[in-house]
Amino acid sequence: MESKNIPDIVIGRLPIYLLALQRMVMEGRLYTSSQELGERLGISAAQIRKDLSQFGEFGKQGTGYNISFLSDQLRRILNIEQVWDIAVVGAGDIGHALAGYQGFTNRGFRVAMIFDNDPEKIGKPAGNFIIQDVNQLTALVKEANIKVAMLAVPAAHAQAVALQLVEAGVKTILNYAPITLNLPAGVRVSNIDPLIHLQRMAYYLDPEKE
Amino acid sequence: MESKNIPDIVIGRLPIYLLALQRMVMEGRLYTSSQELGERLGISAAQIRKDLSQFGEFGKQGTGYNISFLSDQLRRILNIEQVWDIAVVGAGDIGHALAGYQGFTNRGFRVAMIFDNDPEKIGKPAGNFIIQDVNQLTALVKEANIKVAMLAVPAAHAQAVALQLVEAGVKTILNYAPITLNLPAGVRVSNIDPLIHLQRMAYYLDPEKE
Repeated sequence: MESKNIPDIVIGRLPIYLLALQRMVMEGRLYTSSQELGERLGISAAQIRKDLSQFGEFGKQGTGYNISFLSDQLRRILNIEQVWDIAVVGAGDIGHALAGYQGFTNRGFRVAMIFDNDPEKIGKPAGNFIIQDVNQLTALVKEANIKVAMLAVPAAHAQAVALQLVEAGVKTILNYAPITLNLPAGVRVSNIDPLIHLQRMAYYLDPEKE
Repeated sequence: MESKNIPDIVIGRLPIYLLALQRMVMEGRLYTSSQELGERLGISAAQIRKDLSQFGEFGKQGTGYNISFLSDQLRRILNIEQVWDIAVVGAGDIGHALAGYQGFTNRGFRVAMIFDNDPEKIGKPAGNFIIQDVNQLTALVKEANIKVAMLAVPAAHAQAVALQLVEAGVKTILNYAPITLNLPAGVRVSNIDPLIHLQRMAYYLDPEKE
């Protein structure tokens, strides 16, 4: 079913549905509805039903969605039944935060290695990892067959390091550097940009009242 | 015009349009089209036209959008013609990264103060700021009339600190703690969750091939 050409904006909502479902599991819930999911997420129930219907028939008239079943299906669709290893590049503040981040558990990813180019940092710990020399990046990432990287180097180095990652076989980069990467087709990049979030919320701030 | 009830998902695309327009300005461009914007962003031209039409008539048949004019209009709609001061709470790895983040310039926000509860950190520098005692948070945030905060404290403290921020008058919180905040109506929260981005991209990774 996933061979259809599904808009990326629909794919982008699936992890958000999954997160809401996982919270419901923690609350001890068994069933939910598109109405309830919609209210929690601020998305219309019709949109949720339409999104999910692109991948199959997951709910039943009357009882709604079995939360555990729907979660499993979303994990399968998103290819996160397996755990993907991540290479973190850059052991500055953000790199250290990522190496110690508590939010990865049971969500399909784990940090596997961290690199930096600073001789003062190489060999020192970051989270549970020892910071490795970025000169070893291509060899180690290739050997470990790592497909996912988080890029947390200064903007001036981001493009060059990203190309190294791609050469080593990385297909998916989460970019924390405030710069747009220019990479070959087939490599997917998301930018973590706090300003996008802040600007969206500023719409709701009333400048007259502040 | 902004008094209409516009879906948040539309508002959420405006900062992305603005970012693409600002890149075009840096490229020395004067005009663009919904087609070109759509190709850069992976959003359909029809969607872009529909989104913008909710706020007015910004383009001309034949010449398209004047990039500088449309950018100004989006800044006005998003309430980021002014610069909003931000209080950062938590001077750990993420707090330090935010205090030194280079991506705020000309985007409607700036860090104004940073707080922590650790006596070892209070009084020390983070970026261009001196870390202040979180016990001073309510007084200082209220006095400076700050409406925006970035929350980078451990998950166990996030809810309590968020309530303090709200008490001090904060209306908008960017939350880095891996926890869902429960706050009064009228306070808007966005969660920076790298896993949401990674899961979305994992859809495009082929597990058979890895």
